[in-house]
Amino acid sequence: MNIHYDARLDGDLPRQDKATVLADLKRSVPDMTLLHREEDLRPFECDGLSAYRALPMLVALPDDLEQVATLLIRCHALGVPVVTRGAGTGLSGGALPLEQGVLLVMSRFDRILEVDPDARTARVQPGVRNLAISEAAAPYGLYYAPDPSSQIACSIGGNVAENAGGVHCLKYGLTVHNVMRVELLTLEGERLVLGSEALDAPGFDLLALINGSEGMLGIVTEITVRLLPKPETAKVLMASFDDVAQAGRAVGDIIAAGIVPGGLEMMDNLAIRAAEDFIHAGYPVEAAAILLCELDGVEDDVDADCEAARRVMEAAGAIEVRQARDEAERALFWAGRKNAFPAVGRMSPDYYCMDGTIPRRALPQVLETIAELSETYGLRVANVFHAGDGNMHPLILFDANREGELERAEALGGQILEACVAAGGSITGEHGVGREKINQMCVQFQSDELTTFHSVKAAFDPKRLLNPGKNIPTLARCAEFGALHVHHGKLPHPDLPRF
Amino acid sequence: MNIHYDARLDGDLPRQDKATVLADLKRSVPDMTLLHREEDLRPFECDGLSAYRALPMLVALPDDLEQVATLLIRCHALGVPVVTRGAGTGLSGGALPLEQGVLLVMSRFDRILEVDPDARTARVQPGVRNLAISEAAAPYGLYYAPDPSSQIACSIGGNVAENAGGVHCLKYGLTVHNVMRVELLTLEGERLVLGSEALDAPGFDLLALINGSEGMLGIVTEITVRLLPKPETAKVLMASFDDVAQAGRAVGDIIAAGIVPGGLEMMDNLAIRAAEDFIHAGYPVEAAAILLCELDGVEDDVDADCEAARRVMEAAGAIEVRQARDEAERALFWAGRKNAFPAVGRMSPDYYCMDGTIPRRALPQVLETIAELSETYGLRVANVFHAGDGNMHPLILFDANREGELERAEALGGQILEACVAAGGSITGEHGVGREKINQMCVQFQSDELTTFHSVKAAFDPKRLLNPGKNIPTLARCAEFGALHVHHGKLPHPDLPRF
Repeated sequence: MNIHYDARLDGDLPRQDKATVLADLKRSVPDMTLLHREEDLRPFECDGLSAYRALPMLVALPDDLEQVATLLIRCHALGVPVVTRGAGTGLSGGALPLEQGVLLVMSRFDRILEVDPDARTARVQPGVRNLAISEAAAPYGLYYAPDPSSQIACSIGGNVAENAGGVHCLKYGLTVHNVMRVELLTLEGERLVLGSEALDAPGFDLLALINGSEGMLGIVTEITVRLLPKPETAKVLMASFDDVAQAGRAVGDIIAAGIVPGGLEMMDNLAIRAAEDFIHAGYPVEAAAILLCELDGVEDDVDADCEAARRVMEAAGAIEVRQARDEAERALFWAGRKNAFPAVGRMSPDYYCMDGTIPRRALPQVLETIAELSETYGLRVANVFHAGDGNMHPLILFDANREGELERAEALGGQILEACVAAGGSITGEHGVGREKINQMCVQFQSDELTTFHSVKAAFDPKRLLNPGKNIPTLARCAEFGALHVHHGKLPHPDLPRF
Repeated sequence: MNIHYDARLDGDLPRQDKATVLADLKRSVPDMTLLHREEDLRPFECDGLSAYRALPMLVALPDDLEQVATLLIRCHALGVPVVTRGAGTGLSGGALPLEQGVLLVMSRFDRILEVDPDARTARVQPGVRNLAISEAAAPYGLYYAPDPSSQIACSIGGNVAENAGGVHCLKYGLTVHNVMRVELLTLEGERLVLGSEALDAPGFDLLALINGSEGMLGIVTEITVRLLPKPETAKVLMASFDDVAQAGRAVGDIIAAGIVPGGLEMMDNLAIRAAEDFIHAGYPVEAAAILLCELDGVEDDVDADCEAARRVMEAAGAIEVRQARDEAERALFWAGRKNAFPAVGRMSPDYYCMDGTIPRRALPQVLETIAELSETYGLRVANVFHAGDGNMHPLILFDANREGELERAEALGGQILEACVAAGGSITGEHGVGREKINQMCVQFQSDELTTFHSVKAAFDPKRLLNPGKNIPTLARCAEFGALHVHHGKLPHPDLPRF
């Protein structure tokens, strides 16, 4: 593991004898694929956040629900931690294995069970790829809206675990807004059905609770998602600005004008140059920032919105607003954006992608803070992000081979997330907390809230065996990190009493 | 209390001596209004579901957060149950007092703290009326979308507790989709801040968990809601059908055609006649059913949608489709719908309003089942409901003065809700479970899910003092009701193993 992480602070994780666990599981679930040799475990040592690595004790690749349930019941009985993994594309280390735990890989649950065009739903297994759902729905003119950049590869189960987002979340919501029903196995092998195909479900909203819970409450075994009709048309505007703050303000102005773009993305000069160099999308390399604003819907409506958005961006100081001439140019404009991460990657041996969310009106101010921090730490930062929903993705460029640069990048990243919280935002927009941002959770929440999280966790998993050390920090960790109570240290409403 | 309810099945609720509790609270929270004489308690004996009545031990009307916190801490220490009440307009008995408990009335928390037109949010106290938020936002061209029929009177805190809906939820979502942040006091007086003004918040989604939790997890003390821009225009179509099932099918057809109405309501002949007699809205009294279909948005778009919706309804068998000529006629069409409950009330000494949700495609079938049940039980049922989101409101007409009719109405209501569950739906759409539907929860969920609900409840309120006996039934109650496991008794996917 490259990045320093003190596991002691996550409480006493159990450590069982590998041979005993292996023998037990082989006996209990004889037909299940179980990997245990180092060379077989190696491919699973990290997820998309490759700076964090650990070899799991064992990797289980079950084929059916009964195998999963039996595996869980045995791990519960043996006291072995279980980390669940989908496609392993996550960017916060949520599926990072534990050396003393079983990695439960759900990739064989890859069946689309039903597409119902009338109800506009798809019922799928968790290992189904995000894009495969839209492909299966395409013959009916429907699609699944949340579109993480990794949608070719990432699994819908992982999307639920991390409450994944994407370019279109501004208009169509995060994963939690597009999932209607899940089936779940608890660590004790109980099967829960949460949500329904109807509008609402009674009782506590455990369906929402599961979304973004990072495999800490149970193992999702089936998912029913909402499908949407494909918009009749989509058009994209590219606006150039010679000032980053102006571009940030234009974002708020577009929304304030009552326009809801299908996507509203921002790139700063460093990102523009990197992408242009890589993709030749026709981006203005001299611009301080560009906005890509996509309007989708019915033709007339989209044309009217394009005009309105153009006027707003010009009034906000855009030096040029270009509309993609045709579908090919629209695809090219997006190709630049979608390849911005690897493009920036070509500029530097390593980069570290952050993910924080802020209220839109804070964009100019937080962008300025990031620029100042970049200077202070002596590391370049490229900004490419979902501006419309205030979801920032600063990419910190560094060279892990240079002494101390990784640590500086980590520290800078932490500072950026704390700036997001200070601006009234949050330390994640769509990548989740995982292992990566566990310390920043101490900045986001005070001890009462963290205690409540732990109590809710215990309601599902009293032995704390599901994905321990991720998502929710222990109070000991926060005390060590020195950040306990910071959030309420500066109360948003000083007239209210502190309890 | 008129309706039979066996409190023993909710477990052993504590019963403290009234004089002791009163003396303690007077001493601990000396400035708080505390009602204890029978004539002062009487106005609080029921909420909008007036068939259920109980006098609370005490009524507390705090003025500020510190009084609420101290009250809660004392009730926790004394072991006194606490039921929280907003405006008392709820229709499922969620705010029904407990004879051995304190009724915490939040009506004095009625300040709108901030309207932020740029962020499009309003920060309010829980006692603020639903409509008052839209009134405060109106100068900025904004409004708060969820619109329960009681929106003139109901409080936003109660809306959060019951996850309230309304006519416009099809397009704009339930309360949970429009609340961004809440502040909460636990029974131990801890203050939790859940959600944020940003797109997403890390950790478990406790914000969604609070919505619809019926005062069982904590006391909401501040709410930040999302505001939406008022649509440029709204137009309404009224389609008449001579067959209820055809109208039901037309609902699914409209949605399948890619049209998202602002509201899509259905009334059957009994409801049409009652409303017409009362309001003179110009409804076709011979029709078996009407649909009211409102399209809102930009003028051109709305016109195109009106044409498309008209074609779909005609193809589905509508005998007439009329568009409201002007704003006055549009208001009149809606006045008939909005007054349908009291209008039906004029036809019968008593009526009982049910609230179940089903997948849209099941509408024709469930409407037929309701007609059959109505005949079997010898009680008339009027149907007036949010057809677009499958949220049914059968109104059962009865006369409580006739021997056995109340019990028959209750039994018929229960059968209707069970038919909703059997059709893949749920026992509530927007009214909540409260006391009224606690037995039907045993039909909706199996014991594993109920146990998980209780564990989550215990994470917030281990002593089970917050609104006990509502929302989540004990397993003892379900065993008595004889319905444990019914839901999974008929597995939706028989190929999957039972655990």
